[in-house]
Amino acid sequence: MQKPTLPKGTRDFGPEQMRKRLFIFDTIRQTFKRFGFQPLETPSMENLSTLTGKYGDEGDQLLFKILNSGDFAADLTELDIASGYKKLTPKIAEKGLRYDLTVPFARYVVMNRNSLTMPFKRYQMQPVWRADRPQKGRYREFYQCDADVVGTDSLICEAEIVLMIHEVFRNLGIQDFTLKVNNRKILAGMAEVIGAPGQEGPLAVAIDKLDKIGPEKVKDELRERGFSEKAIETLVVDWIGQKLTNSEIWNDFRHKLNASQIGQQGVDELEEMLRLVEQYGLEKPQIEVDPTLARGLSYYTGAIFEVKANGVSIGSVSGGGRYDNLTGAFGMPGLSGVGISFGVDRIYDVMDELNLFPASAGQGTQVLIVPFDSDARAVALPLLTKLRRADVAAEVYPDLSKVKKMLDYANAKGIPYVVLIGSEEVQTGQFSVKNMVTGEQKKLGADEVLWIVKG
Amino acid sequence: MQKPTLPKGTRDFGPEQMRKRLFIFDTIRQTFKRFGFQPLETPSMENLSTLTGKYGDEGDQLLFKILNSGDFAADLTELDIASGYKKLTPKIAEKGLRYDLTVPFARYVVMNRNSLTMPFKRYQMQPVWRADRPQKGRYREFYQCDADVVGTDSLICEAEIVLMIHEVFRNLGIQDFTLKVNNRKILAGMAEVIGAPGQEGPLAVAIDKLDKIGPEKVKDELRERGFSEKAIETLVVDWIGQKLTNSEIWNDFRHKLNASQIGQQGVDELEEMLRLVEQYGLEKPQIEVDPTLARGLSYYTGAIFEVKANGVSIGSVSGGGRYDNLTGAFGMPGLSGVGISFGVDRIYDVMDELNLFPASAGQGTQVLIVPFDSDARAVALPLLTKLRRADVAAEVYPDLSKVKKMLDYANAKGIPYVVLIGSEEVQTGQFSVKNMVTGEQKKLGADEVLWIVKG
Repeated sequence: MQKPTLPKGTRDFGPEQMRKRLFIFDTIRQTFKRFGFQPLETPSMENLSTLTGKYGDEGDQLLFKILNSGDFAADLTELDIASGYKKLTPKIAEKGLRYDLTVPFARYVVMNRNSLTMPFKRYQMQPVWRADRPQKGRYREFYQCDADVVGTDSLICEAEIVLMIHEVFRNLGIQDFTLKVNNRKILAGMAEVIGAPGQEGPLAVAIDKLDKIGPEKVKDELRERGFSEKAIETLVVDWIGQKLTNSEIWNDFRHKLNASQIGQQGVDELEEMLRLVEQYGLEKPQIEVDPTLARGLSYYTGAIFEVKANGVSIGSVSGGGRYDNLTGAFGMPGLSGVGISFGVDRIYDVMDELNLFPASAGQGTQVLIVPFDSDARAVALPLLTKLRRADVAAEVYPDLSKVKKMLDYANAKGIPYVVLIGSEEVQTGQFSVKNMVTGEQKKLGADEVLWIVKG
Repeated sequence: MQKPTLPKGTRDFGPEQMRKRLFIFDTIRQTFKRFGFQPLETPSMENLSTLTGKYGDEGDQLLFKILNSGDFAADLTELDIASGYKKLTPKIAEKGLRYDLTVPFARYVVMNRNSLTMPFKRYQMQPVWRADRPQKGRYREFYQCDADVVGTDSLICEAEIVLMIHEVFRNLGIQDFTLKVNNRKILAGMAEVIGAPGQEGPLAVAIDKLDKIGPEKVKDELRERGFSEKAIETLVVDWIGQKLTNSEIWNDFRHKLNASQIGQQGVDELEEMLRLVEQYGLEKPQIEVDPTLARGLSYYTGAIFEVKANGVSIGSVSGGGRYDNLTGAFGMPGLSGVGISFGVDRIYDVMDELNLFPASAGQGTQVLIVPFDSDARAVALPLLTKLRRADVAAEVYPDLSKVKKMLDYANAKGIPYVVLIGSEEVQTGQFSVKNMVTGEQKKLGADEVLWIVKG
């Protein structure tokens, strides 16, 4: 007999984990909604022609491909096998599982360009799949929660993302976090003023590793990438490890980026974004301007965001930025947008490690009713209906078992209240209510039971 | 330039559809929770060894298989191709997408048998995939919403499912539905008393088609399946198309099934289940006992449930039953359970056709703020924050555009209130609030705005 297992890199989420995850999903969803983002869901499968070439060669390798249905091998020849798996793949698989939510979103926008009202604000909370080598904290199936607005380059949108990040983490109960912000144009300016114009890509890849490998190794990497000693020196002295207060920062940046027009523009955008945030009346902003923040640059063309929770060594829990060409690959160039992505798995880890889940997030059933016999059951069932009508999650133990077994069930499931019904309770209509946390037991009428368990 | 398309049989769900779908999901989830069911999620991918052989040959063909990562073709020979795609598949694909939620649930129970508290009540709301030929109302990716309790054979569980079905449909606003109930043991008894003992399987397959093909063709089908003319005659006279009131039904059934012990047991179970439902105090039960209800029998061993919405010609919107051997295929025999599945897509179609979605289910953003210039914006942003803090979904139009364009945006998105802010509003602190439905416009202070849009 086979012993079932899970595919590697995948997970089941049991009741307790799920309740906590649902708390995170609900909180993010409510916040997205309050900010006017509309829900979208796209299929798990996309045509490989939609997915391929969007994530680089490595990304293409990490796509899960779906074998064509029916006789996929009908037209295969030995030549197809001899030519290797990369050439064989498109002959037997035309669909793949989505790798992120951004490309399907772009595909959706292009397919619905004539009916969508711009600016279009959507959020999307769905799993994505990557055939990465599984390791601690890295899975082959995981959720992304993205919110994007496309069809406008107004900095209001950047400001709203800053606000929404604050809202999400505060609503989750993660009070101590840092939102780092930057702008790709500042990185471009930085490359220009150190004498490596247009090299902000390799520059970003190198300084992105600062936290992990330290400044000396970043220097080595820059040398390898062909940056001159002088450029590296200027970069390190002027830009790396600088700690400036927000009041000094703009003058300092403008001074250093004096010779770069695009750099000045980046500073202007960043300053304007933060000025708008202030106008919204954000209390206690937890923002740090970090001119070295790059997030691998990917497709960002303007603002860049990254959030880390303080007090835990877990990577970034949220990130995003502005991009100017989301839909270009699908023949619709020049559509500007800005978005943010929340990583549910990491947020879960942060909240679990810091014990931030509210008690309600873990709570399942609130009351277990325990009838001792079938007469008691006749009294138990209407009480159950009464509780549920008052929106109390309630169960009756379905079998007539030993009382100890039923109490063990309540304990194992973390049910805080048990209502015991024996012949005495049937006669008097007073129920014995046991608080499973304190052990306290009281005799109460049906309305009082409801009142106490509603807590 | 490629023009993107969707894989056939798959769909995007845009904002309006999604809001309605979320209303359905939330309603079902809340009801499941109130009944003490706990959330579970399993991975989209399962090992093919878990899935294969569980859904019959046809089901195996409908599984979506995932191509192994890396060089899946390294060990292939021309012989592998010559041997045909069915033999080739397991050499290049070891994982598949889940086909339903029942097999992954069984796999989960077996893998966690030592830590689960029995009876175990779980619900699961996730997509499933089937490589079916797409047609109207049939998709290759669709959601299932299942609730099951395993580890007890108490009829209380059947009664709870009857109650939960009533709750779900009433909470959704589908008041006019019929819940058909039966018991496999009655079908077994029926086969026995018409002289075809043990033949309830083929019997069920044939009479399952009664609604679709009518009694004469059912007779033909029974003949083809080897039932005698006498058996068919008895079946048709005694069982098919009988309309009995609930008060006559039990005597009638007991009389007809007099010679079948298992049949009598089925009647007892069904009667006891409905007696328990009455004890719960269910108001206006919408239950019809139908001894011909079979739902293809599949793995059902006791109660069988099926729900149809009245007044629309859409198939069943919910179905389920008791099974005695959920986990047998995974080496854990004898675990009894009972479950129910709600079909979200069909429920959506019913509600859409009958116009049953509440206005709130379609509502996205409640207020759009329209500032005429950057001074107005400085006043708009704190108002936006105030609205959102009061849990009102609110947006500001991000660009400074023509007023008409901004009002068009509100109309296109179905936003019911627009707050217009020009220089006059900036000076007086009184905002012009336009009701986009009635066209009415009023001048209001910030608190009044909040009060009116909270509605």
